[in-house]
Amino acid sequence: MFRSLITLATALLMTLPTLAAGLQHVEPPHWWTGMRDTSLQLMLHGPGIADATPQLAPYPGVTLKGSHRADSPNYLFVDLDIGPNAAPGDLTLTLADTTLRYPLRPRAPGSAERQGFGSKDAIYLVVPDRFAQGAALGNAGMKEGVHRADPNGRHGGDLAGLRQHLGYIAGLGFTQVWPTPLVENNSAQYSYHGYAATDFYRIDPRFGSNADFGSLVTEARAHGLGVIQDVVLNHIGAGHWWMADLPARDWLNHGPEGHYQETHHARMTLQDPYAAPSDRQRFTDGWFVPGMPDLNQRRPELATYLTQMTLWWIETYSLSGLRTDTYSYSDRDFLTRWSARVMQEYPRLNIVGEEWSPYPAVVSYWQRGKHNHDGYVSYAPSMMDFPMNGALLGGLTEADGAYTGLQRLYEGLAHDFVYPDAGNLVLFDGNHDTPRLFPLLKHDVGLTKLALAYLATTRRIPQLFYGTELLMDSPTERDDGRVRADMPGGWPGDPVNAFTGEGLSEQQRDMLDWTRRLFSWRKTATAIHDGALMQYAPMDGVYVFFRYDSERTVMVALNKNDKPVELVLSRFGERLTGQRSATDVMSGRRLALGERVTLPARSPLILELKR
Amino acid sequence: MFRSLITLATALLMTLPTLAAGLQHVEPPHWWTGMRDTSLQLMLHGPGIADATPQLAPYPGVTLKGSHRADSPNYLFVDLDIGPNAAPGDLTLTLADTTLRYPLRPRAPGSAERQGFGSKDAIYLVVPDRFAQGAALGNAGMKEGVHRADPNGRHGGDLAGLRQHLGYIAGLGFTQVWPTPLVENNSAQYSYHGYAATDFYRIDPRFGSNADFGSLVTEARAHGLGVIQDVVLNHIGAGHWWMADLPARDWLNHGPEGHYQETHHARMTLQDPYAAPSDRQRFTDGWFVPGMPDLNQRRPELATYLTQMTLWWIETYSLSGLRTDTYSYSDRDFLTRWSARVMQEYPRLNIVGEEWSPYPAVVSYWQRGKHNHDGYVSYAPSMMDFPMNGALLGGLTEADGAYTGLQRLYEGLAHDFVYPDAGNLVLFDGNHDTPRLFPLLKHDVGLTKLALAYLATTRRIPQLFYGTELLMDSPTERDDGRVRADMPGGWPGDPVNAFTGEGLSEQQRDMLDWTRRLFSWRKTATAIHDGALMQYAPMDGVYVFFRYDSERTVMVALNKNDKPVELVLSRFGERLTGQRSATDVMSGRRLALGERVTLPARSPLILELKR
Repeated sequence: MFRSLITLATALLMTLPTLAAGLQHVEPPHWWTGMRDTSLQLMLHGPGIADATPQLAPYPGVTLKGSHRADSPNYLFVDLDIGPNAAPGDLTLTLADTTLRYPLRPRAPGSAERQGFGSKDAIYLVVPDRFAQGAALGNAGMKEGVHRADPNGRHGGDLAGLRQHLGYIAGLGFTQVWPTPLVENNSAQYSYHGYAATDFYRIDPRFGSNADFGSLVTEARAHGLGVIQDVVLNHIGAGHWWMADLPARDWLNHGPEGHYQETHHARMTLQDPYAAPSDRQRFTDGWFVPGMPDLNQRRPELATYLTQMTLWWIETYSLSGLRTDTYSYSDRDFLTRWSARVMQEYPRLNIVGEEWSPYPAVVSYWQRGKHNHDGYVSYAPSMMDFPMNGALLGGLTEADGAYTGLQRLYEGLAHDFVYPDAGNLVLFDGNHDTPRLFPLLKHDVGLTKLALAYLATTRRIPQLFYGTELLMDSPTERDDGRVRADMPGGWPGDPVNAFTGEGLSEQQRDMLDWTRRLFSWRKTATAIHDGALMQYAPMDGVYVFFRYDSERTVMVALNKNDKPVELVLSRFGERLTGQRSATDVMSGRRLALGERVTLPARSPLILELKR
Repeated sequence: MFRSLITLATALLMTLPTLAAGLQHVEPPHWWTGMRDTSLQLMLHGPGIADATPQLAPYPGVTLKGSHRADSPNYLFVDLDIGPNAAPGDLTLTLADTTLRYPLRPRAPGSAERQGFGSKDAIYLVVPDRFAQGAALGNAGMKEGVHRADPNGRHGGDLAGLRQHLGYIAGLGFTQVWPTPLVENNSAQYSYHGYAATDFYRIDPRFGSNADFGSLVTEARAHGLGVIQDVVLNHIGAGHWWMADLPARDWLNHGPEGHYQETHHARMTLQDPYAAPSDRQRFTDGWFVPGMPDLNQRRPELATYLTQMTLWWIETYSLSGLRTDTYSYSDRDFLTRWSARVMQEYPRLNIVGEEWSPYPAVVSYWQRGKHNHDGYVSYAPSMMDFPMNGALLGGLTEADGAYTGLQRLYEGLAHDFVYPDAGNLVLFDGNHDTPRLFPLLKHDVGLTKLALAYLATTRRIPQLFYGTELLMDSPTERDDGRVRADMPGGWPGDPVNAFTGEGLSEQQRDMLDWTRRLFSWRKTATAIHDGALMQYAPMDGVYVFFRYDSERTVMVALNKNDKPVELVLSRFGERLTGQRSATDVMSGRRLALGERVTLPARSPLILELKR
């Protein structure tokens, strides 16, 4: 902790909290003046600190509201009010015979008004341990070192590697990067995935330092890329430093004095009017696995801790949004307050929650603006669109029927009326938890292009999993270590190199080039960003929809057939009347719009129309 | 028409409208005093009648508001107001040189307040042509006669046959009968199904007379059975008498001057925020088949005609509710007005609409009380629960997974929050349009009992398709003629007889007896009728839920495994605490409630609990 704070402070040229003798943690490590909510609660951790009575040296605009302990003698919670007139500087807190200097920073100009990721954006998801190695940091004092041959081991990707390839990502047409969690996961096994934090305020040293993360964000911005933080509110790793000395007996659900219980993943207990209360509790309070203690966010100090931690990362590193892991598994009322507070501080930010459900009625429950049957209110502007991800995969692989195949895509999108803001959902080709797109689409390049064309043109924020552009393979049953395979070229000496093109097959080269053209075009396609959508019921294996605004119209025709189709255009009068010609976006070819247009076999056709 | 009116009037001992010379139709044939909506529009049909100016002989409380013609010279629409003070009797209308006497009847006491079918009820669906023959009426002057060997031909079942076996239906525990449509379908082929009316006011003479229908309803009531009318608002048969001389050019969609177009069944065009207007129109206005002209309910006189026709059947025959065919295919705004008017006249009636969609968001759109995204308002209190029918079939046949198998049943029911009144939905094992339950459940008697136990105990109005109690077979792909196979014993000389038990296999006899016990028990199980429901997430192939009120608790455990399960009861504390013993509903066996209960292999266990 101490070391990372020094690194951070050095990088950011700011003062540090002076850790008084015996104080092991002061969190959050710094705060700001000018936050909309003026409250701040410090967690102080050190031997016997719970019995101290803090004194605040006079500081204009800042008030010490009080302090209290929980069950452990080694934690003290100090409540401050950082009023609107407080100036940046160091607070001085005296606790018995020790003195703590606590930094209040100025907020960056425009910080509160920052624009989060949105429909103009396309998100590229990377697993940092598996993307690229730039610094060869080894185990960096952590328990697990690099064993690249082990699919479930640590492979040694790091922030320096990601930083080296920001140009590749931006060059593909993406405008946001979502790295899976980067905070310290100091466990003996499976540490690479990052979802078992052992320190919420420290970048895992095998990835680099907090300062390296700051540099990554800065450099990403220079490439036109925002950075999305992957936040885990539901659980920690069993090696988290709290576990040796829990602040309070009820800091965890079912622990340490409770009876260990796993969640049964019955997520609909939260919406179900018939759910047994014990079943609902089992879902929310149960653990994923013994190695991931489940946090009890009903404990007020923990709720505050998690909220401030979230704000700290956004403000310190100028993030453009959050992806929130296992959203519904956290306490539901906490999520309301947490999301309200984040959006209070950053009204234009975006938060995308993960609710792995195939049902729009369930996913929409969590989106800001939904009028729920039970009065539940959420402030998360976005959710991961698992229902449409399923519809996309089913739509392209199933035989077309009354409710199967392309009908899934069509009726899936028609369900948008269930959402308060469907256009702000994130639709993905896959993620670190799902088998990869290419094998799921039966290693069919045509189907893969249909999927990406849909992703890039429908009314959603698209998200691509790293490597899809290379047709990366995986088992089709869940196998995390192999799904999260190394990006070729990310390591010195890799025989195949995505970044230089060296060793790629012709098929991969074509896919990479095609993806680049698609998402690069999307960056300037305003009708896709903000335009309306009009769709037509699929017929004969062809699904047609339009994106349009007052100036531009884009026609998208997805031909699932394994032969070309002569598409009769008269059916699309609402959108084609008056249009004279078109440009095929992917080939640049111009064509006149007559009675028919030829759709190539098993391919998308994206046309920009001209009057 | 004339003949059926005489028959009807004779049976009901009421006066008749005297059809003036040249008047071929006067519809509705009679009306009532004391309706809440006092308006009445008569459709008069006869050569040159459109140019007549009607005069009403003075009648206290009744006003002639006006009359008008449409396009045909042979129809006149006469608007009357039957005020609240009008007494029953005959109106005298003079049209040029002819005089029409039109009967106004008194309403039966309590007619408006009649209780429609509801959660206390269980519905038995019969296809009258295929259930039983009692009168051997032959072709009765209609185009198609009896050809029992042809699966798609007419088999000769009739009202007399149904009437003979009302005791069988009531004895099974059912309290409502839904016969598929009985009105005249005078077409050369496929006339047996009844969904192609050629006269909206006449019982098909091959089933019997309107008077026979009246007797059927009366006798059904004596057996404790209500009768539900199957109403078709969307289309008529190509042989309907209107087709020779349409009242107006726009009486039909796409006809006769329009271009014939079939519906593409894209029902979600109605909810889809992205639907192309032309696609929406194609859905609503397209025809099912050339033999079923699609009615344009935007034509005001037709809308009024269909509404009055509906009320006429309810009032004349004391019906307990409506099943409305192909609900969403009719004009949406018409459906609002139609359902509003029916419920205005009979506030406690029930209407169950058919919307063949697997999506709760779509089905719920049509239920009374739903707050729709687009402001659409419906007054239909019930809908057919196609989503849960799919969940039931999937739940029992799929391997259990995260979203498959029993999870379908559990999450399907959890979706009830989407409906304004889920307990009023009708859940069915199958119907005349679906393959039969037993073959869909792989000819597995255990699975079939699980399905029926679920149907009888969940929070729904259950509906059984005739013959399920006999394990009747059918192809598993749609094959209407074979799904609607003859009820064994319904015809003289049938070697197998469901009604006497003669010739049934042991398996059939067991199923029949089991079904009888199940639904007979349900008749008095108040916790099932009105009680709350609490469900637990399925585990290890077992799904448990409870129905309960302040006095009674019923536990339902569905064991899908092919071996017995020792179910640990501690998980169900919310409902089992304080319960000491139980009665196995199906066997009558008493058991003490200890730590476990044994669930027999692939069977339902229904327990009534005792403190």
